[in-house]
Amino acid sequence: MNKKYAIGVDFGTQSGRAVLVEIGTGKEIATAIKVYPHGVMDEYLPDGVTRLEPDFALQHPQDYLDVLSETIPAVLEESKVSAHDVIGVGIDFTACTMLPIDKDGTPLCMYDEYKTNPHAYIKLWKHHAAQDEANKLNEIATERGEDFLARYGGKISSEWLIPKIWQILDEAPEIYERAYKFIEAADWIVMQLTGEEKRSSCTAGYKALWHKQKGYPSNEFFKALDPRLENVVDEKLSRDIYPIGSKAGEITEDAARLTGLNPGTAVAVANVDAHVTMPAVGIVDEGKMLMIIGTSTCHLLLSKEEKMVPGMCGVVEDGIMPGYFGYEAGQSCVGDHFEWFINNCLPGDYYKEAEDKGINIHDLLSEKASKLAVGESGLVALDWWNGNRSVLVDVDLTGLIVGCTLLTKPEEIYRALIEATAYGTRMIIDTFEESGVPISELYAAGGIAEKNPFLMQIYSDVTNREIRISASAQAPALGSAMFGAVAAGKERGGYDSIVEAAQDMARLKDVVYRPISTNVEAYNRLYEEYKVLHDYFGRGANDVMKRLKDIRREATNK
Amino acid sequence: MNKKYAIGVDFGTQSGRAVLVEIGTGKEIATAIKVYPHGVMDEYLPDGVTRLEPDFALQHPQDYLDVLSETIPAVLEESKVSAHDVIGVGIDFTACTMLPIDKDGTPLCMYDEYKTNPHAYIKLWKHHAAQDEANKLNEIATERGEDFLARYGGKISSEWLIPKIWQILDEAPEIYERAYKFIEAADWIVMQLTGEEKRSSCTAGYKALWHKQKGYPSNEFFKALDPRLENVVDEKLSRDIYPIGSKAGEITEDAARLTGLNPGTAVAVANVDAHVTMPAVGIVDEGKMLMIIGTSTCHLLLSKEEKMVPGMCGVVEDGIMPGYFGYEAGQSCVGDHFEWFINNCLPGDYYKEAEDKGINIHDLLSEKASKLAVGESGLVALDWWNGNRSVLVDVDLTGLIVGCTLLTKPEEIYRALIEATAYGTRMIIDTFEESGVPISELYAAGGIAEKNPFLMQIYSDVTNREIRISASAQAPALGSAMFGAVAAGKERGGYDSIVEAAQDMARLKDVVYRPISTNVEAYNRLYEEYKVLHDYFGRGANDVMKRLKDIRREATNK
Repeated sequence: MNKKYAIGVDFGTQSGRAVLVEIGTGKEIATAIKVYPHGVMDEYLPDGVTRLEPDFALQHPQDYLDVLSETIPAVLEESKVSAHDVIGVGIDFTACTMLPIDKDGTPLCMYDEYKTNPHAYIKLWKHHAAQDEANKLNEIATERGEDFLARYGGKISSEWLIPKIWQILDEAPEIYERAYKFIEAADWIVMQLTGEEKRSSCTAGYKALWHKQKGYPSNEFFKALDPRLENVVDEKLSRDIYPIGSKAGEITEDAARLTGLNPGTAVAVANVDAHVTMPAVGIVDEGKMLMIIGTSTCHLLLSKEEKMVPGMCGVVEDGIMPGYFGYEAGQSCVGDHFEWFINNCLPGDYYKEAEDKGINIHDLLSEKASKLAVGESGLVALDWWNGNRSVLVDVDLTGLIVGCTLLTKPEEIYRALIEATAYGTRMIIDTFEESGVPISELYAAGGIAEKNPFLMQIYSDVTNREIRISASAQAPALGSAMFGAVAAGKERGGYDSIVEAAQDMARLKDVVYRPISTNVEAYNRLYEEYKVLHDYFGRGANDVMKRLKDIRREATNK
Repeated sequence: MNKKYAIGVDFGTQSGRAVLVEIGTGKEIATAIKVYPHGVMDEYLPDGVTRLEPDFALQHPQDYLDVLSETIPAVLEESKVSAHDVIGVGIDFTACTMLPIDKDGTPLCMYDEYKTNPHAYIKLWKHHAAQDEANKLNEIATERGEDFLARYGGKISSEWLIPKIWQILDEAPEIYERAYKFIEAADWIVMQLTGEEKRSSCTAGYKALWHKQKGYPSNEFFKALDPRLENVVDEKLSRDIYPIGSKAGEITEDAARLTGLNPGTAVAVANVDAHVTMPAVGIVDEGKMLMIIGTSTCHLLLSKEEKMVPGMCGVVEDGIMPGYFGYEAGQSCVGDHFEWFINNCLPGDYYKEAEDKGINIHDLLSEKASKLAVGESGLVALDWWNGNRSVLVDVDLTGLIVGCTLLTKPEEIYRALIEATAYGTRMIIDTFEESGVPISELYAAGGIAEKNPFLMQIYSDVTNREIRISASAQAPALGSAMFGAVAAGKERGGYDSIVEAAQDMARLKDVVYRPISTNVEAYNRLYEEYKVLHDYFGRGANDVMKRLKDIRREATNK
């Protein structure tokens, strides 16, 4: 029998990529990347004249179709694998990235009459212009004592589905009216491939307030938001939600022409890019937290039980792995933190030194900072340069550093910022454990996890846990391919469950970061200091950060 | 009658300078500077092989004599003024800068047998190696309830006379034994000029715990420190203290040969460099605080009443102006703060921009920072990068900055550091006023006051007070010259009091910084935030700064 393959397609913020993966080994045979021609639209619509309001972030659906039509044929071509041997396709997406569509699935922005209406386009995950709606939603849900709030750490993000739909209703009721449905881009892609609307439990659970037993929030709740929203779920969404790990359908004739795949190839229910990384590193059961460390960090974790954890981003049954409750938490400023530092706080002679040594500036700083003993900097920072996503869930918190002296060196501040993000991670881990969700091991993926062993050792020391690292640079696509193999099923050369797929195909690096006991002890003391500052500035004893933001707003509005 | 002149000689940390000043106008006719050949010795003795312990900072007395023998003839030469028309000389010095001398006034380090003994040399003000002795002194004085403590903000600095003497006794008892006296370098210079030991009320009061009515601490106190110190005042110091503003004596034949001045020229009792600046800007009565803003800031103030102000550096009757109580306070990190910032936190492209514009880096930052509205940075800092000298008197406090975001720019941090030092000044002013010592106007001298109008406007806005600026770049020397003119007296063409001298000779710039009311209001709100943080981190609610220092010490001793 020929070797069999699956393709994972990962839709990111700036580009999409297809990876063709060998079933049984997880070996990545070919990869193709397509940068979105329209990129992120945050100033103008494609007409070049329609200006966007602040905090808009839109995308164009044609870019996603281009990813399908260019990258899938490219990996087939590069690998010389016959489409016949590709048994399944999985896709993952940023989320909530949503769009209004017509009855036949056509995005409204494709119609000439709506080309100049920003609300007809795709709202990208980081579209933040629905903050007013999110604020009102949180207020009303809190007043009404809605129990779904607890599943999302007490606060619904402006990035999620309902605020985005509500913004459309507020600002472009004609689009709201005209839309047959609002749909996640992830589910829309599955629709393009299979001709079927098979909404994913992952996007529905994490982004649309859906619960496996309880469903969506009540119509009364939606009515309380706006009478016109009373029946939004039935009129503009769907109550049919499919668990990830199941098959959405098969490649249609149209999709076969688009992608070069054979009609009938299995397609998995869509996933979210972070969540699909879990099986890619082999996490298919409880107690193992995955940290996807990039500009921000996303934390994912499975449990057999549904617990309410303060400040988590979400808990969703079947959200990550069928049969488990999937938990998500997050840190809003990690790689961004270090980038801010090197762009705003680093003397020119450090760049000169890095250049002379022929190394990256982060490597130079890591080299210098790694020579410091734990605690030698005398510094502790609060990692809130971009607010706090978990466990305080407060975008108005800001960064703090304490312990500066005239002898404080840039590499000491750099190390303190890294340590601050590690303390933030530990705070999340501790909060989960205190809430009854134990965490024994850590896994990491993402650019920083792969490239910065200095940082990973600090994380291991601060959390006092072993950390394993994803071996794939395209872990989401690998995970999606695994779901594709599961959609195909064992009979067609795939797997009957994601657990089996992960056993064969998950890939970890050989390196394991292990806590160094003297460092663990030293960090325990420093973490105590972090905790005191975290609670003092984060839990209302001194709301100076918020007051400074208020003063700042007033000062700049003058 | 010929015009008359006085000479002020100002002994700084790296150099000494003489200024020849016209009586009646304060016009500075000629200036000469001599850099100390030995500089600050903090690594080796002049033999180049005797290594110094950490925190030592020594000087060589020959350097001071070189200042007298080179700069005084130089200003006479340059100005073409006859020594006959120079009626008085005043000197001022850093303090406590002290040395052991022989019976004839010879510094012990001048003897071959002591040339390799560090304790035979001059201990400069910033010699910090007597910290252990200072700690013990404070502990014992506190236990005994010594009332002198309150006059010095509750704590005696390791920079002052008794800790320095005690260190000599501890580490070099042979030097202690051999010393006929210990003396301030200021008083030793007067001795070189007049042949007389006329100790100044300024140095005795601020640095040697002397009080006009109560004298020195009791022999019992000194005995409690160390039995061998019981009679230190009578054996190694002197109880004869002379008020500043009085005449110490006249130039001797020897001194005339050294300086080119005429024998019989009046010499004033010595002063401290900061304190002598008061008359140079015309402050001769109550309610006007002088800030001498350099690497650190020294605050000086007069009152008719003796009040105990928390955290002041000292209150001394006749310490600054005869007939007044002179108050001193201080901020330990001002210019140093900004230097740290530009050396450790500033991206290379800022230097490039400054170079392209042909301006100083501080001017570039001020230009950028001045475009920000008050509060626009969203930042508040605690100005404790070098501890807190007033009002908390705690060297173990460290710097803090709060409010950082990913949009925070270097010029915002720079501005926040400037504002932090302004808040620190306001805290000192408020503390004086709350203690019954009112302050209505501010005066400023020193490099930063002269060169940075942006900073001065912030100080005016934060303190809500007008600020006047010294017109002389050599204000201490001008003040010393004024005391020289007073030593000469009216009959010889000078003045009978420093008040009269100041009326004629003090010099201020035309510019007056006046508070801008909208900024004052905005800063009032920010200052409230500073106060809360100041008290939380500075008064024991959270001693994180000290614990981080402890952890740092342990980490680096490993």
